[in-house]
Amino acid sequence: MPAPVPAACNCGPRCIGGRSGWRWRWPAAARWPGHGQRVSDTRRRERNAVAPVKKKKGAGHWMDARAGRNERLQHLQTAMGERGMSALVCTRNLNVLLASGFWPVLGAVVAIVTPEPRVLLAVPEDVGELARAGWADLVCPYQAGTLERIGAAPAGLFAVLGKLLEPLVGRGGIIGVEAGTGSLPASYASLQVYGDTLRAWLGASFPHATQAPADDLLAHQRMVPTAWERARIGVSCELAAAAFREGAQQLREKVAETEAVLPFREAFVAHATAHEGVCRADSYFYCMSGPHAARAWASFQQSRPAPVHRHVPILMHCNSYADGYWTDLTRTYVLGKPDPRLAAIFHAVQHASEAARAAIRPGVRGRDVDAAARVVLTNAGYGKYFPHGLGHGVGFSAIDHGEPPRLHPASDDVLEAGMVFNVEPGVYIDGWGGVRDCNMVAVTGDGCELLSPFHLKTEDWCIPI
Amino acid sequence: MPAPVPAACNCGPRCIGGRSGWRWRWPAAARWPGHGQRVSDTRRRERNAVAPVKKKKGAGHWMDARAGRNERLQHLQTAMGERGMSALVCTRNLNVLLASGFWPVLGAVVAIVTPEPRVLLAVPEDVGELARAGWADLVCPYQAGTLERIGAAPAGLFAVLGKLLEPLVGRGGIIGVEAGTGSLPASYASLQVYGDTLRAWLGASFPHATQAPADDLLAHQRMVPTAWERARIGVSCELAAAAFREGAQQLREKVAETEAVLPFREAFVAHATAHEGVCRADSYFYCMSGPHAARAWASFQQSRPAPVHRHVPILMHCNSYADGYWTDLTRTYVLGKPDPRLAAIFHAVQHASEAARAAIRPGVRGRDVDAAARVVLTNAGYGKYFPHGLGHGVGFSAIDHGEPPRLHPASDDVLEAGMVFNVEPGVYIDGWGGVRDCNMVAVTGDGCELLSPFHLKTEDWCIPI
Repeated sequence: MPAPVPAACNCGPRCIGGRSGWRWRWPAAARWPGHGQRVSDTRRRERNAVAPVKKKKGAGHWMDARAGRNERLQHLQTAMGERGMSALVCTRNLNVLLASGFWPVLGAVVAIVTPEPRVLLAVPEDVGELARAGWADLVCPYQAGTLERIGAAPAGLFAVLGKLLEPLVGRGGIIGVEAGTGSLPASYASLQVYGDTLRAWLGASFPHATQAPADDLLAHQRMVPTAWERARIGVSCELAAAAFREGAQQLREKVAETEAVLPFREAFVAHATAHEGVCRADSYFYCMSGPHAARAWASFQQSRPAPVHRHVPILMHCNSYADGYWTDLTRTYVLGKPDPRLAAIFHAVQHASEAARAAIRPGVRGRDVDAAARVVLTNAGYGKYFPHGLGHGVGFSAIDHGEPPRLHPASDDVLEAGMVFNVEPGVYIDGWGGVRDCNMVAVTGDGCELLSPFHLKTEDWCIPI
Repeated sequence: MPAPVPAACNCGPRCIGGRSGWRWRWPAAARWPGHGQRVSDTRRRERNAVAPVKKKKGAGHWMDARAGRNERLQHLQTAMGERGMSALVCTRNLNVLLASGFWPVLGAVVAIVTPEPRVLLAVPEDVGELARAGWADLVCPYQAGTLERIGAAPAGLFAVLGKLLEPLVGRGGIIGVEAGTGSLPASYASLQVYGDTLRAWLGASFPHATQAPADDLLAHQRMVPTAWERARIGVSCELAAAAFREGAQQLREKVAETEAVLPFREAFVAHATAHEGVCRADSYFYCMSGPHAARAWASFQQSRPAPVHRHVPILMHCNSYADGYWTDLTRTYVLGKPDPRLAAIFHAVQHASEAARAAIRPGVRGRDVDAAARVVLTNAGYGKYFPHGLGHGVGFSAIDHGEPPRLHPASDDVLEAGMVFNVEPGVYIDGWGGVRDCNMVAVTGDGCELLSPFHLKTEDWCIPI
C-alpha cells in the first residue's frame, strides 16, 4: 500500500481527493501560488479553445500551454477508452509533455491521465512554477529530500502517486504504463530513469490492478500532434531556421568543426531569448566536414576538433528544442564554389527532397515517400550512397529513428493530415564526404507544409569566401 | 533463447567465443580495424600501467583510455567475486564508461564484465571507431537497422548479447543488472532507455540464471575513481576552470542570462578543442541573477531571457563533460562593488567552503564535512538560508544528489582516499538573491586536493564595470 500522507484538502468537490475520501493539503514549502486548486469552469472553458501560438506582447516568457489542452485530452480519452484504462501513467519526459503540456527538466515528474479526462502531475517541490506552464488539473509537489533526510525521489514521489492512483485503480482496473525501449530527449545535464522501481511499486501497491504496456498508444498519440502542438513545433523550427541563416554567414575556413557550430548556437539563443512565449530553448549543432561528413549517415553526429576547408562539403546538423518541442534539421554548405561533383550531388539531394515533399499527402505510405526520393538519387547514380531511411517522426522526439511515421523502404505507416516528420535524403561517399538535406514537414489536407523554409537552393549552400 | 547469429570466428583461443564453441565473424560492414580481435599480451601489459593523462603532442584527439583498464577491472573483479556474479551487464551510459572506458553517445551500447575479468561491448555499427577509445577486450557491432528492416535496437542488440552471455550464464549463475532508479548524464540530444525489455529478455533467454540488482555495487565503484579516472575528471575540471576565467571577464550588465552564458560556453569549447586527448566535450552553463538566484537551491538551474544587473549576485552554474567525466561547479559574481550585505555573504560562503575543505580527510563522515561548512554559515547568521546538503559524488554522474559520497547532515558515508565530490555551500534569500560556491575536490591520503583552483577570493568574484 502507498505510504500514508497526512493531509487535508479544501479544493472542493471536483478535486480528485474528494472522490476517495482522502484530502490533500499543500505543504507550507510550496512556493508558487494557485496549484493544487480546482481549476474553475470558466478557466477550463478558456483553455479549451485551440489557438495558434501568437507572439503576444506582454505575455511573458512562460509558454501558455493551456490552449493546447482540449484536443490532446480528447485524443487520449478516446485511446484510453478503447483499452479500458483507468489510469495512464507517464514518466518519460516526452510523454509527460504529451499528457500535460509541461516538459520536465530532470525527469522526476509523473503525469497521470484519468478517464474523465483529467491530468494529475506529481512534481518535485523545486520544479516550482515551471509546472504552471502546463495544463494539468492538479499539480502535487513532493519533497525529494530535506536536511533530515537525504534526497531519494522515489520515496516522496511514490507517496504522492499512491494518493493519486488509489481512487482510480485501488479496487482494480487497467493501468497504462511505459514498458518498452524508448528514446528520451535530453532537457538538462542529466535525466532520471526508474529501472524496475516504478513498475514494482505499482504491482505491490495496487495488487488488484493490471499493468498494460501503453508504449504504442503513446507513440501513436505523439505521431499526430494537435494543431496547438504543431504550432509549437513550428516555433521551434523558426528559431532553428534563424540560427541556420545567421550562423552560415559566419562560416570560415580553418576554424575547427567544434568551433564552427558556435555562431549557430549563439544565434539560436539570441532568437529564442527574444521570442515571447518561449521559456526553455537550446540547440545541439554538429559540424562534419570533408571526408568526415561521409560518416554522417550514423544515428548521431559528432563535431571534431579539426578545421573545415574550402571547396568540400560542410554538413551542419541541428537538433534543437523550445519547451520540449524538437527539430531535426541539416544543411550542407561549401566555402567557395562547389566543384562539378559536389554541385551535382547538391542538385541531386535537393531534387530528392523536393520529390519527396511532392509525394506527401494523406493516405500515402511511408515507403512511397521514401521511394520518391530514392529514385531520384538512384537515377543520378547515387542510390547506393543513401544507406538510411528518408525520415521519421520528430517533435516530441529529437532523433528516434523508430518514431512513427517512418519514411523507409519497409514502412507501411500511412500518412495522416497533421503528422510532423523529417525528410532527410543524403549521399555519403567514403573518403570524399557527405551531403544531406534535412527538413521538417507537416502533412496538410492535400499535401505538405514545409516547416523549415530556408536555404533551399544551391546558391544558399555556397558561402562566399 | 537468444536469436541465432550465423558467424564464424578466428580470434584464437582467448576469444570469448572459444569457450562455448560459437564463433564470431566480423561483418563486412564493420568500418574500423582491429576490433573483435584478441588483444595481445604485450598490449595488455602496456594497458596495465596506470599513468596520469599527458598532453602528448601527436597523440591525436582520441582519448587513450586503455591506461585506466587494470585498476578499474581489479576493483570490479573483486566486487563481482564477493557476490558470485558470472556476468555484470551495464546499459546506462555512466556504467558503460565505468566498465569499459568508453562513453556511449546515444546509449544503445551494453557492456558485459566477466569474472576473469574481461569486458565485452555490444555496440551499434555506427558507433564505429568511437568504441576504440575504451579498453574493451571484444567489441561486437550489431546492425540497428538496414534498408530491408526498420531500425530497432533491441532486436540486433539482443542477438549479440545472447551470444556473449550464453557461455557465461547459459547453464545458470548470477547476472548483475541495473534495476533501480538512476540518473543518466546527457551525452547527446537524446538517450535510449530500455524499460522492461532487457530484464524480460534476460529472464526468457537465460531461465537457469538469477538476476541480481547491481546498482549499489556500481554506485560504490563510481564513488572511488581510479587514479586514471581521477586524472580524467581533473582534465574536465581544468577545461571548465578555463571557461570560468575567460567567461567572467566578459560578463556585462543588461545582457540576458541566456546570453551571459555564451562566452563561458565558447571559451569551454575553445579549450576543449585545443586539448590533446579530449574527443567529446561540451558544457551546460546556467546563469541566475538577482532575486532569481534565490531559486538556485533547486536541483536544476535555469537561465531566463531577462537581463543581469550591476551590484546584484550573478550565480553562474556549470555542468560540463570531457569524454564522459563530469564537473559540477558554481561561482557567484557581481558587476561592480558588492554592497555590505553581498560582501558579507560572499565572505561567509567562501569561509564555509574553506572550512569544509579543511575538514576533508579519509575516515571522516560526510555529515561532519557538511557540519564544518554549516556551522560557519550559521554563526554568520545564514544557517537557515542553506537548505540543501553540502555535496555529493561527481565525475561519472553530473548532478545526482544521491550519488555517494553524500555530504549531508544525515550522511554516514565515510570518506576514502581517492573519492571525488563537490563542495557547494550556498545562501539563498527569497526576494534578494543567492550566492553559491561549488568546487570539486579529491580526497588525498591526509586531506583534500582542490580540483577547481580558480576564482577563490572575493576580488575574483567582483567584475569591474
